[in-house]
Amino acid sequence: MKFIEKEKIEFKNPIIIEAFPGTGLVGSIAGFQIIKELKLKYLGYFEIDRIPPLTTVEEGIPYPPVRAYANENLIVLFSDVIIPPFKINELAEFIVETFSNKNPKLFVSLGGIIAGKSEKVYGIANKENLIEDLKNYVEIFDFGVVGGMSGNLLVKCGDKGFDAIGLLAETVGVRPDPRGGANLLDVLNKMFNLNVNVEKLIKEAEAIENKLKELAEQHLKMMSKSRKEYPMYI
Amino acid sequence: MKFIEKEKIEFKNPIIIEAFPGTGLVGSIAGFQIIKELKLKYLGYFEIDRIPPLTTVEEGIPYPPVRAYANENLIVLFSDVIIPPFKINELAEFIVETFSNKNPKLFVSLGGIIAGKSEKVYGIANKENLIEDLKNYVEIFDFGVVGGMSGNLLVKCGDKGFDAIGLLAETVGVRPDPRGGANLLDVLNKMFNLNVNVEKLIKEAEAIENKLKELAEQHLKMMSKSRKEYPMYI
Amino acid sequence: MKFIEKEKIEFKNPIIIEAFPGTGLVGSIAGFQIIKELKLKYLGYFEIDRIPPLTTVEEGIPYPPVRAYANENLIVLFSDVIIPPFKINELAEFIVETFSNKNPKLFVSLGGIIAGKSEKVYGIANKENLIEDLKNYVEIFDFGVVGGMSGNLLVKCGDKGFDAIGLLAETVGVRPDPRGGANLLDVLNKMFNLNVNVEKLIKEAEAIENKLKELAEQHLKMMSKSRKEYPMYI
Amino acid sequence: MKFIEKEKIEFKNPIIIEAFPGTGLVGSIAGFQIIKELKLKYLGYFEIDRIPPLTTVEEGIPYPPVRAYANENLIVLFSDVIIPPFKINELAEFIVETFSNKNPKLFVSLGGIIAGKSEKVYGIANKENLIEDLKNYVEIFDFGVVGGMSGNLLVKCGDKGFDAIGLLAETVGVRPDPRGGANLLDVLNKMFNLNVNVEKLIKEAEAIENKLKELAEQHLKMMSKSRKEYPMYI
Amino acid sequence: MKFIEKEKIEFKNPIIIEAFPGTGLVGSIAGFQIIKELKLKYLGYFEIDRIPPLTTVEEGIPYPPVRAYANENLIVLFSDVIIPPFKINELAEFIVETFSNKNPKLFVSLGGIIAGKSEKVYGIANKENLIEDLKNYVEIFDFGVVGGMSGNLLVKCGDKGFDAIGLLAETVGVRPDPRGGANLLDVLNKMFNLNVNVEKLIKEAEAIENKLKELAEQHLKMMSKSRKEYPMYI
Repeated sequence: MKFIEKEKIEFKNPIIIEAFPGTGLVGSIAGFQIIKELKLKYLGYFEIDRIPPLTTVEEGIPYPPVRAYANENLIVLFSDVIIPPFKINELAEFIVETFSNKNPKLFVSLGGIIAGKSEKVYGIANKENLIEDLKNYVEIFDFGVVGGMSGNLLVKCGDKGFDAIGLLAETVGVRPDPRGGANLLDVLNKMFNLNVNVEKLIKEAEAIENKLKELAEQHLKMMSKSRKEYPMYI
Repeated sequence: MKFIEKEKIEFKNPIIIEAFPGTGLVGSIAGFQIIKELKLKYLGYFEIDRIPPLTTVEEGIPYPPVRAYANENLIVLFSDVIIPPFKINELAEFIVETFSNKNPKLFVSLGGIIAGKSEKVYGIANKENLIEDLKNYVEIFDFGVVGGMSGNLLVKCGDKGFDAIGLLAETVGVRPDPRGGANLLDVLNKMFNLNVNVEKLIKEAEAIENKLKELAEQHLKMMSKSRKEYPMYI
Repeated sequence: MKFIEKEKIEFKNPIIIEAFPGTGLVGSIAGFQIIKELKLKYLGYFEIDRIPPLTTVEEGIPYPPVRAYANENLIVLFSDVIIPPFKINELAEFIVETFSNKNPKLFVSLGGIIAGKSEKVYGIANKENLIEDLKNYVEIFDFGVVGGMSGNLLVKCGDKGFDAIGLLAETVGVRPDPRGGANLLDVLNKMFNLNVNVEKLIKEAEAIENKLKELAEQHLKMMSKSRKEYPMYI
Repeated sequence: MKFIEKEKIEFKNPIIIEAFPGTGLVGSIAGFQIIKELKLKYLGYFEIDRIPPLTTVEEGIPYPPVRAYANENLIVLFSDVIIPPFKINELAEFIVETFSNKNPKLFVSLGGIIAGKSEKVYGIANKENLIEDLKNYVEIFDFGVVGGMSGNLLVKCGDKGFDAIGLLAETVGVRPDPRGGANLLDVLNKMFNLNVNVEKLIKEAEAIENKLKELAEQHLKMMSKSRKEYPMYI
Repeated sequence: MKFIEKEKIEFKNPIIIEAFPGTGLVGSIAGFQIIKELKLKYLGYFEIDRIPPLTTVEEGIPYPPVRAYANENLIVLFSDVIIPPFKINELAEFIVETFSNKNPKLFVSLGGIIAGKSEKVYGIANKENLIEDLKNYVEIFDFGVVGGMSGNLLVKCGDKGFDAIGLLAETVGVRPDPRGGANLLDVLNKMFNLNVNVEKLIKEAEAIENKLKELAEQHLKMMSKSRKEYPMYI
């Protein structure tokens, strides 16, 4: 696992927001909107074994699928592909290690919980004083299982002495839920004065969702078809 | 494999109880009750390859799935997830190694045997004098195959010169059997004067069982659905 | 991964064209024609784990499946077999490393995009000034996912400071599309004055395609049959 | 791969009998009877990757599945579980290495050949003079394929300069065949004056066979059921 | 991968014939006949990962499945089992390395090509002057894919500076084709004055083929049955 840093930024105790894809895509949707609205710069990319060999092209330039965007106060981790479950522990540890020398103020992990509706956002944290603070913004997630990156990143941050919180939006189901993403953004706006337009997100998220789904389907078709028809040659 | 110790405790020849999930969940049920009733502290967690990336949240704080709780006389090893069969040998050896420097008095492994009923508790041990002692509390398991952690942990303890016993409760079947867990707790109470309320266990175990099963099902749904619908992109 | 160099050539800032098989075989078709028409020499071959143990015989001499051909101004990377998807990241990095000491002027990656027709060629690049230049020849691929070697090679070239562009021809589908290959060749001719006969390509590509498909089928039959009938002995 | 030696024995050029499970269980049946009748001591156990985490309990004490028993003249290698086919080469080599410092007189490998009847015992050896000697006791196995440990152990012994023979009993089929086991014991009695009661074996072997099969089935049920019902939790 | 040399032979620029099993078993059939007729000595065996743990017994002595036989002028590589496809590259390289210190005059690889008939033998080589020479004996294989060991061995020999040719006999299909084996032997007789009786081969090859197929089937039955019926025990 490597992080290839492409841009040198003078960080000022940045907040690091993990917005990898998960339930309802809520973290990705919120992260995407922050990156675009705050015009964050492309900071670099993660090289991870077993990630499919895709790149996302923007204005003619290809980018690897797992990337970081940043300004001097904020780093957002974003991915076009799902992180393979058995890479999550290692990646969580690697993220803490990679960004620990940027003097991060706080790690924030975004995620979703299937609830049949998109109303509340729940909070988790790796220290009791952070829990107290979170109560000003969200309801605490009292008891239950949290899968994916959120819980693991908080544990690894705790092991290295970094403060970390998780924000878990309710989602209608596993399908992309722009409303849940907007709810996450609402909380982030209040907590860190990000001032990102939330209403815009809902409209754009649906457009982006459609676009990406279409491309993903096209790509899947490409790969699976070519294999079946020409297993040895091409 | 690593053990990340989060709390420094001055141990006084502790007894180490292995209560990982197995047949009828009897070890987990008994271990859970001991942890709660004796208000054991969170000692730390095991990092094990190929364990699913889940965390269990309690009062807003996420914990990794394979953990140890302790007071100065007692260490209880507990897991929210089944230990993969081919990790058991290595983990048994790692447990002995990890806790050997705490001057443990005795290792106790808890397990279950399907018997169509939940009456007896059987004992095994890694030395003949321990067998004699066990006869005061339980019937000796005379001949047969013991799967999972119990037998292996006793063997590895024996190799390093540590005393170890196993307590195997009869269970109705593979489903969680609070009665079998209570029977284990009865024996542990008598052996080590733990003074843990057994009747309370039976009521609570059922509640916990339901709660955890529900969360597990929800999580499984989450992971399998998201993979099917968005195999490449989220 | 190794590159076994069989011919010593005095390179003069060569252009390196990656023409591995992909959608519509367009890269392979264009690359094959360049190798033949410009009478490039066999430069050497790549040794890659998990590539099927095939060789291609030409005039009685067997060649490994993943090869490079060259003259002093041009290196073409060609493969008789599909590169396994999870080798692509590593191979992209290895290619840049292997040829970086030849003072390459530019890396060019050839690929295809399913479009239901074979008209346009799209361009991508790893630097903005290259995008500007590309606009003189092709339309820029504005936004989307690019799978396979193309995107990855551009990223890895960028990491090492090398200029790299990708040319992506529209293809009717995944099946070999000589028209798409010809369109790539048209652009390459204009860009680098290669002066390769494009019309000839279309006729020959179909013949080659048929020949290779037939051989591939014969080989597949050989391997799968012998396994089923004599699984232990022969 | 490790051998953990639990008992120090002063060996006097011992004969090493490999009695791992195979066709018709004939080696295991003969080996088991020798261990019991000659009251061999538990010498130690093999630690082998990918062996299922089972232990066999005798009189309350758990033992790992692949073990050695011995007196000063004899070492018997016994296993409760089948050795995975792709571990056999490595284990054969490891056995020769492990016991080479005990100055072994001879290695003897026990096995079975499906013949539809349980009459003859065939012999193989790794030297021609041993073949001559074997002709006094058994018919030589003239030509054919021998699977499993027998052939491999002879080859590895030969490579290290140790004498080794294999005794292959006819078996009715793959099911446990006490008659075939008794035939092996007959030959071993004659060759090495072991004086083990053969008739007793036949009666006891059936009882043991039933007992072990029952336990094995119970265990299999345990493991497969628990996985299906609680794949994540328990 | 290892080669265990069992016999010290003073080689005089030997020809090394690779006769591993392949299409139509033609190489194995020809190699077997050369070994028997020229009474070659058992030179040693190859130890290769993932090869099934079989041995072939001849006159009571077990031999590993991948072996070499030799006299001072000739080394024949023979195998009772198919070489796993993904071991072929590594084995080809290992063969060249292993025998390079015997000052080999020439490597000869034997193989088959399905043609619906058994008439011609085609030739390939790793140098142009060898191609010229081959034309005196066989037709040159002009263009196509050659799978398995033949092509790879020629490439690896070429990389190390050794001369190597391949002889590819037409075969009726994938089934053993003694006629194709005889045709190979005819060419080898002419090329190297081996003076091996070809007519004898055809009669014997059929007998051997039947014998080996029968044993292979018996063995397969043994292994697959025992696994199904006693997956844990025996």
